[in-house]
Amino acid sequence: MSQSPDNAVRQYIAEHRQSFLEDLTAWLRIPSVSAQPEHADDVRRSADWLAAQLKETGFPATEVWETKGAPAVFAEWPSDDPDAPTVLVYGHHDVQPAAREDGWDTEPFEPEIKGNRLYARGAADDKGQVFFHTLGVQAHLATTGRTTPAVHLKLLIEGEEESGSPHFRTLVEKHRDRLAADVVIVSDTGMWSETTPTVCTGMRGLVECELSLCGPDQDIHSGSFGGAVPNPATVAGRIVAALHDGHGKVAVPGFYDGIIELTDRERALFAELPFDEQEWLRTAKSYAAQGEEGFSTLERIWARPTAEVNGIGGGYQGPGGKTIIPSAATLKLSFRIVAGQNPARIEAAVTQWVESQVPAGIRHTLTFSGATRPCLTPLDHPALEAVSRAMGRAFEQPVRYTREGGSGPAADLQDVLASPVLFLGISVPSDGWHAPNEKVELDLLMKGVETTAYLWTDLAESLRT
Amino acid sequence: MSQSPDNAVRQYIAEHRQSFLEDLTAWLRIPSVSAQPEHADDVRRSADWLAAQLKETGFPATEVWETKGAPAVFAEWPSDDPDAPTVLVYGHHDVQPAAREDGWDTEPFEPEIKGNRLYARGAADDKGQVFFHTLGVQAHLATTGRTTPAVHLKLLIEGEEESGSPHFRTLVEKHRDRLAADVVIVSDTGMWSETTPTVCTGMRGLVECELSLCGPDQDIHSGSFGGAVPNPATVAGRIVAALHDGHGKVAVPGFYDGIIELTDRERALFAELPFDEQEWLRTAKSYAAQGEEGFSTLERIWARPTAEVNGIGGGYQGPGGKTIIPSAATLKLSFRIVAGQNPARIEAAVTQWVESQVPAGIRHTLTFSGATRPCLTPLDHPALEAVSRAMGRAFEQPVRYTREGGSGPAADLQDVLASPVLFLGISVPSDGWHAPNEKVELDLLMKGVETTAYLWTDLAESLRT
Repeated sequence: MSQSPDNAVRQYIAEHRQSFLEDLTAWLRIPSVSAQPEHADDVRRSADWLAAQLKETGFPATEVWETKGAPAVFAEWPSDDPDAPTVLVYGHHDVQPAAREDGWDTEPFEPEIKGNRLYARGAADDKGQVFFHTLGVQAHLATTGRTTPAVHLKLLIEGEEESGSPHFRTLVEKHRDRLAADVVIVSDTGMWSETTPTVCTGMRGLVECELSLCGPDQDIHSGSFGGAVPNPATVAGRIVAALHDGHGKVAVPGFYDGIIELTDRERALFAELPFDEQEWLRTAKSYAAQGEEGFSTLERIWARPTAEVNGIGGGYQGPGGKTIIPSAATLKLSFRIVAGQNPARIEAAVTQWVESQVPAGIRHTLTFSGATRPCLTPLDHPALEAVSRAMGRAFEQPVRYTREGGSGPAADLQDVLASPVLFLGISVPSDGWHAPNEKVELDLLMKGVETTAYLWTDLAESLRT
Repeated sequence: MSQSPDNAVRQYIAEHRQSFLEDLTAWLRIPSVSAQPEHADDVRRSADWLAAQLKETGFPATEVWETKGAPAVFAEWPSDDPDAPTVLVYGHHDVQPAAREDGWDTEPFEPEIKGNRLYARGAADDKGQVFFHTLGVQAHLATTGRTTPAVHLKLLIEGEEESGSPHFRTLVEKHRDRLAADVVIVSDTGMWSETTPTVCTGMRGLVECELSLCGPDQDIHSGSFGGAVPNPATVAGRIVAALHDGHGKVAVPGFYDGIIELTDRERALFAELPFDEQEWLRTAKSYAAQGEEGFSTLERIWARPTAEVNGIGGGYQGPGGKTIIPSAATLKLSFRIVAGQNPARIEAAVTQWVESQVPAGIRHTLTFSGATRPCLTPLDHPALEAVSRAMGRAFEQPVRYTREGGSGPAADLQDVLASPVLFLGISVPSDGWHAPNEKVELDLLMKGVETTAYLWTDLAESLRT
């Protein structure tokens, strides 16, 4: 061949781009809204469609896996090299609800290409990003002359991510052996921007709880009793105030125990990102950047644990006033946690701390729910370096690193499979996830294809050495 | 006369008790529920009935005074002594809503006497206590041989007290000259207990406000933004926590400025009352007594200013959790204030303090409503001593002093008329104000009659000297 391998990949992709988009468009027409029971059949149709499509792509084994909710799709393409590492790709085939009247300029389930953009619900989140793996592995094979991928390739595409993945962990535990992998690649995130390709290296975990504080057996008159008995709404406020110290640190004793601190290299790399705080504040619809002292905004949202009040309520909330001491108040708190912290230890620390904060005369109930572990892959992990290199070739520039402040089912994969989790996503912030006029940038989508075309060879070598 | 004046009064009352109760019963049959529009005619009928009854009692002038809501009744009986002091009696002829199915053992508007008790809505609050003034002034005249009272006697019986007296201050301002008095006697409170007669010497005032705290323009994702922008629910909690210092004192600078402290005599008199804290806690339906350090429970509820959270709300309050930073939070606060404090100064202090508490990035709105001044009559005021003596004669034992922790329209009378306000009430805590099976103790009701039979002579002398 006279052309470089990269040119061969690009040519292959260019030749297949049209049919690839036609297939993706067919899939996007299926309104696989997992949150709406009336679309349950569509979610199943989406799974069946994807399983058939992956079969056609070349995956020898494709299966629809049942859960107590919507089905997932599993596909496997073993390498002919028995010593090849195993890679599990994660994505989801369900989508957020969407209706034209929500503010869409087009029908959300009638995909439309305008210029470099494909508009449809699920274009970026997450059908587009699942789908680039199909043409990607074909390009990988076609341009390397292989008949099987350089890695044992597995795909797990769930059907309930937009409904909070209620059965995902059970599913992963059930199929733990089939899913075993040396590395998990999640394609359900995004990059910094169109011009700044990035790889996400971790997500924060989450611990959620609800604290009920009960004072008088019923609302009592603040004239008759005010000033002489504990007020549960006041206690709720004091607990909220005590959550943080004067430096913005979470004041729950033991909260930071075992935390893996940011390295100097990570901090330097974050600092190099073209971050505009004013623009970020507009995205956050907020009016000030504020948080833990000694950390930048990006460090605060990506790599530092937090305590937030998600909800607070107690007493009279209607129009006007009502001179009562409320009988009860409730706090909904959530803690984002980072690598080195774990939900069980945080729950124990919060429980003990809450007990120390509740005064005599107030009875309390603390209930935890929905804990998710954090995940983090070190910057020098060979798989991360391979993803970074493959993406750098596709984008023809060095790739930078981000993290994700949110929490997701990726942590279950890390947790149950005991595998490092990497994030390969090509979506950009303007793609409008969960919003009207969701779209994917077609050039970026094809960069996703190209990245995976390079990745499996590189990863096979990197993980072998 | 061979009998003592007290015996003469008692004999007169005994002779007229039956017809007095028949008249009261007729009035109690009128369901003058001011809060329920369907009873508007009944409230008017109640006013007309009372005006006619006061005319029959002997008041030369009785008038029904219109307001923008329910009518009040005014009656005047000048003394033939032009130098006599003027006394204004306050009460109300409207009642709380009541229905048999709320838990009444009898029909609430079909009065029933069982033993020493008269059961009916309004029996104690406040028709019974207004009505003892009718037989009282007749007994005063009959047993002193006078043809007019020893004081210029005025009655103002409003019709909207149970609806928050929305037009009362306007009414008082409009008729300021007609209502002018040397002393106001409010008969709309109670005593410590059947065996411990007391006179109330003051009420706390009230300043109410609502604080809105706005953060992000909409709820934002606590994963994407948590830890890096101010959370209005957290700020609400911090403001609540900052309301008090570690000693239970209100921490708003200037809050205590000008306050009239309890005298040693008042504290000693409060301490002599047969107060059982466990029993009080049961009444408060609360599980601990707690408040400003250095003060007893009675001092805290009667004579110390407070800051209470009546309501707090922000973010997600439904079932389960929602990982958001709420866009807004609201606090409903009320401050009970005591003599020496005034609403305007407290509002200014709270406004300035709130401004100092709200951090960058949070916009706030603070709205005040419904301020009521405190009122207090010193223990050595001659009118208070006269009330205490008259009540002591009727009850045949020394009378003690209380205050009232709540706030009421009495303060408007003190304020507009610039007159001291005294409280002459014979109701006891078991009378069930606002509750099913409201009743009045007939023996105590007749003690109210007896007290006023003595009072006008004593008051005329006390205020003259």
